[in-house]
Amino acid sequence: MATLRYFWPTALRPRSGRAFAFPVSHTNRRLSTKPQRTVAEYLDWRPSTEAADVVVNGHVRSVRTMKSEIFVHVGDGSTRKPLQALVPKQMEGGSGLRVGAAIRLRGSWVPSNHADQSHELKVSQVDILGPSDAATYPIQKKYQTPDYLRTIPHLRSRTPLNTAILRLRSDAVASLTQFFASRNFTQTHPPIITSSDCEGAGEVFTVTADPTETANKAEDMFFRGPRYLTVSTQLHLEALAQSLGNVWTLSPTFRAEKSDTSRHMSEFYMLEAEMPFVEEMDDVLNLVEDMLRHLATNLYTSRPAVELRERRNRGKSRTAEDDLVSVDESKWPRITYADAIKLLQAEEHRFEHKPTWDGGLHSEHEKFLAKTVGATGEQGIYRPVFVTHYPRDMKAFYMRTTSTRPQTAISGDDCSNGTGQLGATVDCFDLLVPDLCEIAGGSMREHRLAPLQEAMAARGMTSSNGDQTNLDWYVDLRRWGSCPHGGFGLGFDRLLSYLAGVQNVRDVVAFPRWFGRCDC
Amino acid sequence: MATLRYFWPTALRPRSGRAFAFPVSHTNRRLSTKPQRTVAEYLDWRPSTEAADVVVNGHVRSVRTMKSEIFVHVGDGSTRKPLQALVPKQMEGGSGLRVGAAIRLRGSWVPSNHADQSHELKVSQVDILGPSDAATYPIQKKYQTPDYLRTIPHLRSRTPLNTAILRLRSDAVASLTQFFASRNFTQTHPPIITSSDCEGAGEVFTVTADPTETANKAEDMFFRGPRYLTVSTQLHLEALAQSLGNVWTLSPTFRAEKSDTSRHMSEFYMLEAEMPFVEEMDDVLNLVEDMLRHLATNLYTSRPAVELRERRNRGKSRTAEDDLVSVDESKWPRITYADAIKLLQAEEHRFEHKPTWDGGLHSEHEKFLAKTVGATGEQGIYRPVFVTHYPRDMKAFYMRTTSTRPQTAISGDDCSNGTGQLGATVDCFDLLVPDLCEIAGGSMREHRLAPLQEAMAARGMTSSNGDQTNLDWYVDLRRWGSCPHGGFGLGFDRLLSYLAGVQNVRDVVAFPRWFGRCDC
Repeated sequence: MATLRYFWPTALRPRSGRAFAFPVSHTNRRLSTKPQRTVAEYLDWRPSTEAADVVVNGHVRSVRTMKSEIFVHVGDGSTRKPLQALVPKQMEGGSGLRVGAAIRLRGSWVPSNHADQSHELKVSQVDILGPSDAATYPIQKKYQTPDYLRTIPHLRSRTPLNTAILRLRSDAVASLTQFFASRNFTQTHPPIITSSDCEGAGEVFTVTADPTETANKAEDMFFRGPRYLTVSTQLHLEALAQSLGNVWTLSPTFRAEKSDTSRHMSEFYMLEAEMPFVEEMDDVLNLVEDMLRHLATNLYTSRPAVELRERRNRGKSRTAEDDLVSVDESKWPRITYADAIKLLQAEEHRFEHKPTWDGGLHSEHEKFLAKTVGATGEQGIYRPVFVTHYPRDMKAFYMRTTSTRPQTAISGDDCSNGTGQLGATVDCFDLLVPDLCEIAGGSMREHRLAPLQEAMAARGMTSSNGDQTNLDWYVDLRRWGSCPHGGFGLGFDRLLSYLAGVQNVRDVVAFPRWFGRCDC
Repeated sequence: MATLRYFWPTALRPRSGRAFAFPVSHTNRRLSTKPQRTVAEYLDWRPSTEAADVVVNGHVRSVRTMKSEIFVHVGDGSTRKPLQALVPKQMEGGSGLRVGAAIRLRGSWVPSNHADQSHELKVSQVDILGPSDAATYPIQKKYQTPDYLRTIPHLRSRTPLNTAILRLRSDAVASLTQFFASRNFTQTHPPIITSSDCEGAGEVFTVTADPTETANKAEDMFFRGPRYLTVSTQLHLEALAQSLGNVWTLSPTFRAEKSDTSRHMSEFYMLEAEMPFVEEMDDVLNLVEDMLRHLATNLYTSRPAVELRERRNRGKSRTAEDDLVSVDESKWPRITYADAIKLLQAEEHRFEHKPTWDGGLHSEHEKFLAKTVGATGEQGIYRPVFVTHYPRDMKAFYMRTTSTRPQTAISGDDCSNGTGQLGATVDCFDLLVPDLCEIAGGSMREHRLAPLQEAMAARGMTSSNGDQTNLDWYVDLRRWGSCPHGGFGLGFDRLLSYLAGVQNVRDVVAFPRWFGRCDC
């Protein structure tokens, strides 16, 4: 066989100059006890004749005792579909086949007579690896409400639906990693503990090494001052984009908001990306669009995505194909905030909140935009909608003021609030989808020193006496070799709940944290 | 062109039942301003004749003014090598070509007369996108000590070495994602804020929503009790492995240790994996070995790894190939702790600390083992060494007690501390390399309820009055359908510093945090 060569770093030589002659055994290892195949792989395996001597590991999902045989449904997290096993009634170990038990079955994989499966397992040996008392098992074989399952997050992922969602998450991460690698983006790990509060507002968690520490003077604290859990990695990504080129991250972020909604958690994953040497915001929108299309295309054939799609279409006359958007050469719609407000005002009888320039977009407005501007002509299918160029006062200090009329603008006074003067808006965007509304947002960043300092001063973010602030480092990035750049952030959990067709973001996270709840 | 179909979730239908007819512009977008090629791609591009009308974006690394031309070295983070540009002396913008400036150069890519480059850029237009005052620029063109650069983390990544290290990190993440996907491991996001202190010891960071909160009663706190930053995701991964099958994560973890060494940080990334339905610890060792081999093979041809290897070999007579381990069919050595102690005792004159069964392995012992047991016969090249089956009292409560004699054991009384009785050790391992010593550790986990409860009681981890403890959920995993399982954890930053040949883990992280330091 070919001798492979591997890269390992240099290390010091042994002092003795010779390899030590102690005998070390390399051979005769025990055979692996790893599972031969997953349940998903078995279900895909359809030999025309009986395949003897196979092993299935998994958990018992259900048990039906018939006249001479026990029918056991086995799952192992690889698919929502169960594997059916037939166990002779008097077989040793058979009495331990209870819902929830961890088992190892040996037997033959044989063609099945049942309509809903091609093969089943004829069992010759049962090993109960971990017994279960079916009566007390917290996940009974019946419908469990999401609320109830959230009280047992350590067991919740054993339900086939939650397993599929967590596998979808994994496939999505792999697909995004592949996408960004193909686009020459460097994946980065910006810090979690930080001295900066990105948005200049928001409720942040404080980190202390010693719970009594906050009573101390700054110099006596672990980090010589108060530190927080990051609310966004954007500012740090901007620093990295100036040195590494295109960068991205999928990083935990935190908000100490006391909100109890289906869209908010205290701990959530943000996908953020930043591109240097980019002047046109459309390049950032194109990146978001390309990324989501790549992801959707990949997930179209991923097992958990297929299974979640099947689940949503169960009992409906529509087929899974209704969930697909036929995308040709046309791009996702892009509309300016000014045009969006005009569109909403023309339909203002529909809304509880009157659409106004200064009022921002309420959730009902965003939903309307997603369903009208995003309509495809195919019933029930909507393209995501970019809304761009929001009023400056609504947005964060770091966004670039609009200086050229957006190409997507339809009415003449876009971005000027009717004054005819540019500068009332910033070069930013939100991406809207029905139900969830905003799933991503981004902007061009103010990369020039003086305008950034002015924006910060206007928001009271600079110390009036010239003292250091905790964003001095960020301002510093504009002092030497700053370049035009832009980027975006996307709530990864919201995206997953959108893709999985799950109402509550708490159900796409293994161990969700929100106000009052941090189990396990 | 083919019509692609994409997967998007169902959304509500528009109330009006028709697509809204508002005109939205889809066409005539401005041309992209994205860079045409990276510097790395230019340097790889060797057309035989002049290529006109190209654009280079980047930062000025150095400037030399000659008789009629300015020689500019440009970098953009894609490679450690600079691109050479020749700018006519009187060209507009030429005076802005200062070290650190962000620039856009237009011109022709032409074959070069210089020995150390095949092509160079003949510049026809200079745009200074972000000026730099070379005199005040914190990264002067001279050797900067790592200590100094750590004081400016927001600018540090602009140095070619730090850029290469961060790109190596990105390539390593992509390679690991690929490896685990190919092995059917699900990538997971275990929680960062947690109620559990994994090791039952160690100094943890406390998380509060309000700095005065820790003075409150538990029910008045944000999470109804004190919460911490995770020190390891293992316990949560074990829960997920029981439902999803094989799982892994690359997750930030935290320790509030007041240590100031080159191997410790307060915030660091841990790669952890867990496999259910595995009884033999060798399967876990095989996974670690396969993973690191896959990674090393991938990185062998990755640009940052190649460049970092070149850097380390600079000025030495040895070539880069000396850094490679020729790996044939033989596996990395595996040795029991008992045998390791005997080996060390036979050489005890070498050590400051006398090797004893109860004394554990000191750093000098680990280095000796890495260099003797790991010796390959090739000078300066060492295989990583697994040391297995440590004494039970040294290790964490969740490790499985050894019940069968390890195959790798050489002396007769292995794992029994000379008593001839098994049970003095646990099924665990550390992976040792020279210099850094331990880079990974793992074990079989105690999956049976009673032995786990006994181990916890013996360590005083259970409440004596039957009250709930914050690990009740973990014990719960053993109540229903627990299965034999094992896993490992690997300090990702240490691995990177090992691969990059960098002495201090603080230099493989963009914004390192350690005792007293949390800049930016």
